[in-house]
Amino acid sequence: MNSVAILGASGYTGQELRRLLAHHPHVRLAHAMSAREGAEPEPPALPVDQPIERLDLAALEKVDGVFLCTPHGTAARLAQKILPLGPKVVDLSSDLRLKDLALHAKTYGHAPEAPELAQEAVYGLTEHARAAVAAARLVANPGCYPTSVLLPLKPLLRHGLLDPHAVIVADAKSGTSGAGRQPTERTHFGSVHENFLAYGVGNHRHVPEIWQEAGTERIVFVPHLLPVFRGILTTLYLTPAPGSGADAIRACLRESYAPEPFVKVYDRGYPELNRVQFTNECHIAVGTVGPQVVVISAIDNLVKGASGQALQNMNLMLGLPETAGLR
Amino acid sequence: MNSVAILGASGYTGQELRRLLAHHPHVRLAHAMSAREGAEPEPPALPVDQPIERLDLAALEKVDGVFLCTPHGTAARLAQKILPLGPKVVDLSSDLRLKDLALHAKTYGHAPEAPELAQEAVYGLTEHARAAVAAARLVANPGCYPTSVLLPLKPLLRHGLLDPHAVIVADAKSGTSGAGRQPTERTHFGSVHENFLAYGVGNHRHVPEIWQEAGTERIVFVPHLLPVFRGILTTLYLTPAPGSGADAIRACLRESYAPEPFVKVYDRGYPELNRVQFTNECHIAVGTVGPQVVVISAIDNLVKGASGQALQNMNLMLGLPETAGLR
Amino acid sequence: MNSVAILGASGYTGQELRRLLAHHPHVRLAHAMSAREGAEPEPPALPVDQPIERLDLAALEKVDGVFLCTPHGTAARLAQKILPLGPKVVDLSSDLRLKDLALHAKTYGHAPEAPELAQEAVYGLTEHARAAVAAARLVANPGCYPTSVLLPLKPLLRHGLLDPHAVIVADAKSGTSGAGRQPTERTHFGSVHENFLAYGVGNHRHVPEIWQEAGTERIVFVPHLLPVFRGILTTLYLTPAPGSGADAIRACLRESYAPEPFVKVYDRGYPELNRVQFTNECHIAVGTVGPQVVVISAIDNLVKGASGQALQNMNLMLGLPETAGLR
Amino acid sequence: MNSVAILGASGYTGQELRRLLAHHPHVRLAHAMSAREGAEPEPPALPVDQPIERLDLAALEKVDGVFLCTPHGTAARLAQKILPLGPKVVDLSSDLRLKDLALHAKTYGHAPEAPELAQEAVYGLTEHARAAVAAARLVANPGCYPTSVLLPLKPLLRHGLLDPHAVIVADAKSGTSGAGRQPTERTHFGSVHENFLAYGVGNHRHVPEIWQEAGTERIVFVPHLLPVFRGILTTLYLTPAPGSGADAIRACLRESYAPEPFVKVYDRGYPELNRVQFTNECHIAVGTVGPQVVVISAIDNLVKGASGQALQNMNLMLGLPETAGLR
Repeated sequence: MNSVAILGASGYTGQELRRLLAHHPHVRLAHAMSAREGAEPEPPALPVDQPIERLDLAALEKVDGVFLCTPHGTAARLAQKILPLGPKVVDLSSDLRLKDLALHAKTYGHAPEAPELAQEAVYGLTEHARAAVAAARLVANPGCYPTSVLLPLKPLLRHGLLDPHAVIVADAKSGTSGAGRQPTERTHFGSVHENFLAYGVGNHRHVPEIWQEAGTERIVFVPHLLPVFRGILTTLYLTPAPGSGADAIRACLRESYAPEPFVKVYDRGYPELNRVQFTNECHIAVGTVGPQVVVISAIDNLVKGASGQALQNMNLMLGLPETAGLR
Repeated sequence: MNSVAILGASGYTGQELRRLLAHHPHVRLAHAMSAREGAEPEPPALPVDQPIERLDLAALEKVDGVFLCTPHGTAARLAQKILPLGPKVVDLSSDLRLKDLALHAKTYGHAPEAPELAQEAVYGLTEHARAAVAAARLVANPGCYPTSVLLPLKPLLRHGLLDPHAVIVADAKSGTSGAGRQPTERTHFGSVHENFLAYGVGNHRHVPEIWQEAGTERIVFVPHLLPVFRGILTTLYLTPAPGSGADAIRACLRESYAPEPFVKVYDRGYPELNRVQFTNECHIAVGTVGPQVVVISAIDNLVKGASGQALQNMNLMLGLPETAGLR
Repeated sequence: MNSVAILGASGYTGQELRRLLAHHPHVRLAHAMSAREGAEPEPPALPVDQPIERLDLAALEKVDGVFLCTPHGTAARLAQKILPLGPKVVDLSSDLRLKDLALHAKTYGHAPEAPELAQEAVYGLTEHARAAVAAARLVANPGCYPTSVLLPLKPLLRHGLLDPHAVIVADAKSGTSGAGRQPTERTHFGSVHENFLAYGVGNHRHVPEIWQEAGTERIVFVPHLLPVFRGILTTLYLTPAPGSGADAIRACLRESYAPEPFVKVYDRGYPELNRVQFTNECHIAVGTVGPQVVVISAIDNLVKGASGQALQNMNLMLGLPETAGLR
Repeated sequence: MNSVAILGASGYTGQELRRLLAHHPHVRLAHAMSAREGAEPEPPALPVDQPIERLDLAALEKVDGVFLCTPHGTAARLAQKILPLGPKVVDLSSDLRLKDLALHAKTYGHAPEAPELAQEAVYGLTEHARAAVAAARLVANPGCYPTSVLLPLKPLLRHGLLDPHAVIVADAKSGTSGAGRQPTERTHFGSVHENFLAYGVGNHRHVPEIWQEAGTERIVFVPHLLPVFRGILTTLYLTPAPGSGADAIRACLRESYAPEPFVKVYDRGYPELNRVQFTNECHIAVGTVGPQVVVISAIDNLVKGASGQALQNMNLMLGLPETAGLR
């Protein structure tokens, strides 16, 4: 039995990890901590509920793994302190994802907190970094939007199935849990319910991450806010390379992901959010619309887009079966 | 005071017209009819509610205008019978929108019911057909998706601001009222709530209508179903012509629609559904995302996308102020 | 043409008043002010939008009426300053509703800010205070829950149709707009959507107001938070007096409200929120459930429960038709 | 390993059972059948999905248990045929719940299909019928509303903590999944979203079931339809017996349910739907409102209110740990 700790346990990704770990056959949640100094630990609502502890780095010496669910900016500094204590670390924030430090500074408005760790951290899109993740002591867990874009796109780019000169449109729609648990005007019920909008048009922070991992800046990404809690559905508009097309693209995706437990490529029909919610799965379907190929992907942003993939990575890092606790 | 009748008054577009006409300064709703033979007229819930009458064509001789809110397939045949009686007719169905009869047959699975009327009917995208509408006795009211796509696109195509070889992506998201009042599995609360999906990928019936009115088949259109009741938000991905760009495109739209009472082009920010719901307005904003220009439009599918535009057209046909009853 | 000002124009009730006044035939909105010192006035989203001004009491000398949509605690002090300037004042806060100053102190945790005005203010449940409202310079606009409870209850209490010893249960369910525009954990989308709960059990601030106006403390009131934006539906459980019953109760309500433009008593069926949303109406229905009579009322909390009733009162205070701007 | 079959596997309760059984350590789902003759079996969306088979009674000889998720009226007749084949049967319909056959006829509009089985069937409110369930071959699984009312009420009635002459008000609010998967006008997205209403006032079919199991007809029950998918929250208004009160009532409930794995009685705070959704738990809290005690219960109508309790009962009938597959 391995033991892990969650730092930032009261936010949505922290809560989701607690939910997943409650049924994990090989991992025990030793500590659910709130990293904010002086934060009031959440009182248990029922006697059986596990309380949230205050941050206590010393206690982390005895755990095998740590999940950083803390806000951007805090996570990198915590990783610096925790890694010397021994545990493997999966960072769910964006602190360690960008390798280009100047780009990080431009994107987040300040220099990276731990540039040496940003270089070390493995970008944990598990299906495309399995060996590196298994060997890593530090993983930068991918963003939710990048996961939804990169899983369908990476095999197609690698196999040269897309016109290398054409733009790739990624029109993404996310539930509000991606914006976190902190109340804001943007996520007020009265602002979201019976509403819909685009945001971050031309300046969303996930764009450099998508470009870095896709290896191309031809991706035009626009996120939208759905009046749902869980899930991201991304519609990709692709120009096939000469000789390619919907059939070749579907075949490539089916073959690439055939052995994968968490990526499903449809034969027919299209994914809906309610088929992936509460699962660590990514569902992908391919269709033809006039001259373009449309690829649609769906994930639960809190699971495959965050805590589920983080656990998938931690399983590998701890030498456990990759799917443990995730079915 | 003019008088009008609604046929198909119990569906969503019929109800919406009743709502709008209740405050119209120059038009009186003389008859709210249900066109289905033998349909049970809806009993008034309150003594003051106007009851729905059974279909009675003879009564239409005395009205100045008729709104056809009846299902596709029924409307054209009703128009054939009603026009000789005298009233102007606005048809909200798709029966009379396509000019190419073979295309109609292919799209709807049967030959057009009234091919001669399909040729005569003016396609009533009001801002782009004002004079023709004013002179018409029969208007084919545009579909909701086509309205949301064509209003931002037509000025740009006309002024040559878009690369004529590039694909135009129109990623559209609609509330469920567009699917009508008839309960279906697709619009069951349990299928829509906390869910999101693409549908009609590659075969939506509004595509030929969009292509016809845009004058190009380079438009790649994918509709999605939002868990909201009212509204369509469409995200257009455009490749500017050489020398064009976001500023030129915004300027073109601002100039084109400056005199228009119902089309608003933003200086900054982006539209949200809740800014257009219950209005006859179309809001449009322009941004840059990498190499492309993104244009976002928002309408209320039941108002500017259906009943509001129908009333706007009827106002013109009856010689009334275009905005009467629509503010 | 009369002129009015709104103080607190950026909150939900202030916005709702702006919406209503936009179509008022006899009243012009001269000033939409934000009362918070130093508050950033909301920038207009479109050139045609009316901007929100900073608070400027001097400008109020020239208006005929002022709506106080400011938070509890602020409103009473503003009323003290504004009344000497001349305008009639309708206060939508709870500052001036309770006549018993000790009860006010106990309910709100501090002594009333303007005890003399609390005595003067007319409690503006319009249908039950029409003459007093018309003669008043200051009206305390009723709370949303009290409006939904008192409209069905007051005629029954006055006519002795209820068992004077029995408890009256008022189980009320409200949309989130009643909690205002300020984002809180309680009204975060993730906390409301696909959720439902009771709150304020045994200590809701509207209880003393309900008791005061009903003239009895036998009312057991529990509010609940609905995942909707607009509307309150209250289910009343009543024990009829000997000889009374559902028929007598329905007849009493029908007779009491027959001349009223905004209160509708059903012959059959039950109200739903979507029949009163965006209207100033209260819908009421009566049924029998075992030994009890169940009375259900529905209002839009932002209209009849707040801004609509405020305008109804202001109309009377300014000598205008009571229904002006409210249909 | 035991094997079971689901009849009516495509409805909401059948789907929910499939979800629960997917993780059951001791029970294998051998057959997921659709009981409607000629019904099109649902095609699997993914190659790994278990397909739904047509009804085949012969195959049931080999299973240990059968869940009847078929519509009312069908279930009893299926039970007659299946019991002789050997398997234990849990019927989730209302066919076998009422012991008074005349009352059944009055409530459902026809004589019971299998009166002898209605007498035999154990009413499976597990916490109050554990021994009888464990010994039964046939269980009538309780309705969702009755479960939410009876769990908080039965201990109080048994221990004489309520005024025996006073009315008990049960104001219940349910998500739409209780109305099933069949699309209707009532559960159309446009009818439910941003709406709320009471229904079945004075004539809901669950009332006789509640009265039978509570042993009293003093319960005044009114159900309401929430715009959520999962969950029932019931607010009970109780008059304590002399000497009783909120503290005694809370203590009684805590003591009664202390050993129960699925019933949680709060020390403080009140339940919300999102704390019980997707669990087999019933959460209960007690408060004082004026002269009455308010007890609030929350369950997931599809789990403790249907499929979860059915599995809890089947576990007992098969001699398995009661909580297997339910945590």
